[in-house]
Amino acid sequence: MKEQWLKPGERLDDLQCQGFHLIQDPKSFCFGMDAVLISHFAEIRIGDQVMDLGTGNGVIPILLAGKKRKGQFTAIEIQEEASERARRNVQMNGLEDRIKVLKEDIKSIAPLFPPSSFDVVVSNPPYLAADGLKNPRQDKAIARHEVMMTLWDLMVQTAYLLKPGGRFYLVHRPDRLVDMMTLSRQNRLEAKWMQMVHPRQDKKPNLVLVQFVKNARPELKLKKPLFVYDKEGNYTPELLECYQS
Amino acid sequence: MKEQWLKPGERLDDLQCQGFHLIQDPKSFCFGMDAVLISHFAEIRIGDQVMDLGTGNGVIPILLAGKKRKGQFTAIEIQEEASERARRNVQMNGLEDRIKVLKEDIKSIAPLFPPSSFDVVVSNPPYLAADGLKNPRQDKAIARHEVMMTLWDLMVQTAYLLKPGGRFYLVHRPDRLVDMMTLSRQNRLEAKWMQMVHPRQDKKPNLVLVQFVKNARPELKLKKPLFVYDKEGNYTPELLECYQS
Repeated sequence: MKEQWLKPGERLDDLQCQGFHLIQDPKSFCFGMDAVLISHFAEIRIGDQVMDLGTGNGVIPILLAGKKRKGQFTAIEIQEEASERARRNVQMNGLEDRIKVLKEDIKSIAPLFPPSSFDVVVSNPPYLAADGLKNPRQDKAIARHEVMMTLWDLMVQTAYLLKPGGRFYLVHRPDRLVDMMTLSRQNRLEAKWMQMVHPRQDKKPNLVLVQFVKNARPELKLKKPLFVYDKEGNYTPELLECYQS
Repeated sequence: MKEQWLKPGERLDDLQCQGFHLIQDPKSFCFGMDAVLISHFAEIRIGDQVMDLGTGNGVIPILLAGKKRKGQFTAIEIQEEASERARRNVQMNGLEDRIKVLKEDIKSIAPLFPPSSFDVVVSNPPYLAADGLKNPRQDKAIARHEVMMTLWDLMVQTAYLLKPGGRFYLVHRPDRLVDMMTLSRQNRLEAKWMQMVHPRQDKKPNLVLVQFVKNARPELKLKKPLFVYDKEGNYTPELLECYQS
């Protein structure tokens, strides 16, 4: 009975992956398709040390642990409630031996980890700038806006954590592509693979998945685009594969 | 009789645009779909001063003059034979009052034009790096490889030529996207619109069209992708529109 893990107001969602579930608070930030897509896009190899920066409820390391059956995961979340929920999600799914959740500010994690100590970093960061926010301390604002972590912070910390040749998997909005490319190269993270995600074939992309490699030589390779819905409004086979495998 | 304009070994191609034709040398670099796509992508307004950097046979300004019926064009080409052919193409099509062809090295055009003197710059530059070329002085090599003009040179000269708010239209390969984004921002040219070109719906993009704006604030907007062929192997309506309008 996983319901025993719930606190008042929380709900339990089926991750459709190894029988895993996720506790979420509908009043707070809930995971979306982006977390599923980046978990499918990221390649995890046997023995990899994997870091998730800004883990929220812990959805990405839980999906990765389920999908890939490889790797040891560390997940950082600055928010008290979300990090506690992430820790409960890890326990509820019996993943304590594979996923460690830390409530930390990613901008000050350097003392906790030696440089170049991770093979993989993954992140589904806040997409939006912080300007004009009325209440920048709210939990949803912190998950969605660059209040506590900017793209620059993310690149700096990722470059610190990754081994040379280590991989960084990022999901973001295409309108931040120039920022992504500029800030990553300034931190010796080179974009090597990119995939655009379009709602439909005749629509512009609204998400982009990027693999950066630390200290790699420049050459970006593109994957064929991922379309979410087909002409009839059903999920495409490619999208369903992201959920299933 | 346009054939009278031909020199030995040259051929005459129908541009399918206002009855214009183009003299090309099949042994040298001939224009491809990229020139047609960037001419369709570029927006030219009444009174615009437009510069084409690396014009080759002059195809882009001739297409732009035909498609848009607006703007005054200056076209720079470093190669003697190509620039002479471009000048002949302009005369043959009766466009001397709208297009001026100069045989110049774009790296040294600053004395020829005041800074911020153009509204639009357009370019279909060499796509490939110069490394490993056996004969870097050959005409095809100069058109295809960064022998005489690198992407950095192009960004520096474009930033010099453009007015604040001026537009730069570039067609390039997606594998140079990080270079494009990094070098443009270093020169105060901000990518504002981007369109990926895919051979088919299920293929990765092999060309990218970008509009940069000088001194603009960061925010990249994507257009819906352009697919060249449909499932039956015919040109898509969107692609035909690039040729026709």
